[in-house]
Amino acid sequence: MQKLLKGLVQKNSTKIVLVVLDGLGGLPLNGKTELEAANTPNLDALARAGACGLHVPVAYGITPGSGPGHLSLFGYDPVEFQIGRGILEALGLGMEVKKTDICLRCNYATLENGVIKDRRAGRIPTELSRIITEKLSSEITRIDDAEILFAPGMEHRFAVIFRFPEPLTPAADAVNDTDPQKEGEAPLAPVASSPSAGRVAKVAEKFVTEVSAALKKEKQANYILLRGFSVMPHLPSFDEAYGLNAAAIATYPMYGGLAKLVGMSTPHVPGGVQDEIDFLKANYDSHDFFFLHVKKVDSYGEDGNFTEKCKRIEEFDALLSQILSLNPDVLMVTGDHSTPAILKGHSWHPVPVLIKSPYVLGGLCAGFSERECTKGELGIFPTVNLMPLALANAGRLKKFGA
Amino acid sequence: MQKLLKGLVQKNSTKIVLVVLDGLGGLPLNGKTELEAANTPNLDALARAGACGLHVPVAYGITPGSGPGHLSLFGYDPVEFQIGRGILEALGLGMEVKKTDICLRCNYATLENGVIKDRRAGRIPTELSRIITEKLSSEITRIDDAEILFAPGMEHRFAVIFRFPEPLTPAADAVNDTDPQKEGEAPLAPVASSPSAGRVAKVAEKFVTEVSAALKKEKQANYILLRGFSVMPHLPSFDEAYGLNAAAIATYPMYGGLAKLVGMSTPHVPGGVQDEIDFLKANYDSHDFFFLHVKKVDSYGEDGNFTEKCKRIEEFDALLSQILSLNPDVLMVTGDHSTPAILKGHSWHPVPVLIKSPYVLGGLCAGFSERECTKGELGIFPTVNLMPLALANAGRLKKFGA
Repeated sequence: MQKLLKGLVQKNSTKIVLVVLDGLGGLPLNGKTELEAANTPNLDALARAGACGLHVPVAYGITPGSGPGHLSLFGYDPVEFQIGRGILEALGLGMEVKKTDICLRCNYATLENGVIKDRRAGRIPTELSRIITEKLSSEITRIDDAEILFAPGMEHRFAVIFRFPEPLTPAADAVNDTDPQKEGEAPLAPVASSPSAGRVAKVAEKFVTEVSAALKKEKQANYILLRGFSVMPHLPSFDEAYGLNAAAIATYPMYGGLAKLVGMSTPHVPGGVQDEIDFLKANYDSHDFFFLHVKKVDSYGEDGNFTEKCKRIEEFDALLSQILSLNPDVLMVTGDHSTPAILKGHSWHPVPVLIKSPYVLGGLCAGFSERECTKGELGIFPTVNLMPLALANAGRLKKFGA
Repeated sequence: MQKLLKGLVQKNSTKIVLVVLDGLGGLPLNGKTELEAANTPNLDALARAGACGLHVPVAYGITPGSGPGHLSLFGYDPVEFQIGRGILEALGLGMEVKKTDICLRCNYATLENGVIKDRRAGRIPTELSRIITEKLSSEITRIDDAEILFAPGMEHRFAVIFRFPEPLTPAADAVNDTDPQKEGEAPLAPVASSPSAGRVAKVAEKFVTEVSAALKKEKQANYILLRGFSVMPHLPSFDEAYGLNAAAIATYPMYGGLAKLVGMSTPHVPGGVQDEIDFLKANYDSHDFFFLHVKKVDSYGEDGNFTEKCKRIEEFDALLSQILSLNPDVLMVTGDHSTPAILKGHSWHPVPVLIKSPYVLGGLCAGFSERECTKGELGIFPTVNLMPLALANAGRLKKFGA
């Protein structure tokens, strides 16, 4: 899709706002989905006047993770551009990822007589995990030519970056997980399966040895398992792909991190949705594309809390007028995937979307919901098509062919 | 699509039932399609509660044969995986096809003074054709290193297999038809257009000579034309592709044969739809995927018999509760293609489908028909997407990406 846009993109002074209510799509509980049960007069009005539809982030039946879900929204084929698990972990813990980096998600584990007794070190408390990680961070700062960076996480989890002096190739991350996936087995050695991964495997091996030595007095967290070796994928930036100067407004680090991978500016925005909207208002002149991420909708979906998911949607609905008062040329409201409360997790269901723009049919949907969106003018379509629609509605795409 | 599923498939104890009402889709006669004219209270109830849509077996405007229609339903790209006509003929006549085989569809023909006088030997009666074929079968059992197998068919048609001692390459079937397609012309010699087809062309040439000699006293069927040389395609099995232990319940040999190509177990099920459902009940514990094929819907469509096609749909509707009483986790009812009675043949029209599962929106269609399915939550989609949807609804797919 992005290839098709090459040569068609033109710049102008229009503004595009993409609001992502994370995990927006749902399924009926007692006959109504979250969007149907929530009282959303403002979204409903936009849906009545706007262009609606449902989008498929990866493919029919495929449940997207947050990485593929957002890449699709940003217009990147999520099968072509896969974001490694180490990268996502690092981004989620607020680390900056560079082209010189190998990212890893790590587990503290308990080793006894050479075999893994507990792959999660008894799920040690987050606070203790943080203290241990900070100690490691002060003791282990460099191995061979790689700088070593740590970020503490929840319970037994943390992230590590091996930062090399120069950019790495995509194959440099071809190192296996050291996690045997089963307790009672010995940890695996990190082995390179590509020539360029050789130095990475060597650093990894020494890293495990040094960490083990540093942790030898710990009762539970006396070992670490390395997983998801990954280098930063090469993604064309929003500026390169769309000629857009884009900003991400997200309070959770992972989403800003994903946005940074596509070259969005990612200022630190603490607080809640009102703070995000305040930031949007304050910086509205500085960018022409805004990705505004609302996390809590998904969080309550994951918890199976139907009522609270509805409330988060209602909370956003009540704030919507503030975004509308900016009068963006194109406003899109959608999710990165569905998270039906009845499934307590991401799902494969197409995600409702509405586009506010002067150049739509409108008048097809009675409100904003999964079922009403099936009647919309956008149909059911691959998520990667959303960015071209946004650009088109913003007058930012020239005619294809004569 | 199947490539995308690699690494996502997980096994569990769910059951999936795919009911194929062959040639289900139709077109209006006096304003109503077959599905609209038929009285189908049970299918209508499922459509009201379930997920509905229309699927496109090959592409817009393309009329699928039974091979592509079923392969798509099974999740195999019908353009990538093409089933040779010789294979389909052999399967349709109940022959077992192996990786060592070259399959052929053959015509009895009338040769006079070296030219084809009648390409169909006057459409000789099926009974006579059978007698001749059995005679050939007893006289010609081996040529070079190939075993020769015959299966009698309707009128002038029959199938032949050249069974070689070892598995063949895909290119081993690169031999032209000997049918000149026109009467008054000489038959063509079978010529290999790939190195590995050389031995096959040689066997074919000797085969035609031996058959001609054996038939020289026949008035009409004194010659044969060979068509559709084909080797068995390599298809990943249902177990490999989906982790499913699948069974095909079909009374017509071709459909069991198609299912066998994808590794389904294909027990012999004689009789009608009730017998098929009895078999499903009796074997429900032994498999986790069931393909239940109902042939007669298509047969009456092909005959242009609108009323009888409706009756076959109604007959199935009346038996549906027996399948529902098994409470499968996912039940899909659809066709492999459309066969509108007014067209007396397969057609290119998208095929209605309904999915019964707890994880659907539902409530969008008033009943089960082509027109109502346009309102459904599945939209109009490529048929190959149906299997991933089934797996997702059955909880058999992990999340893609983190």
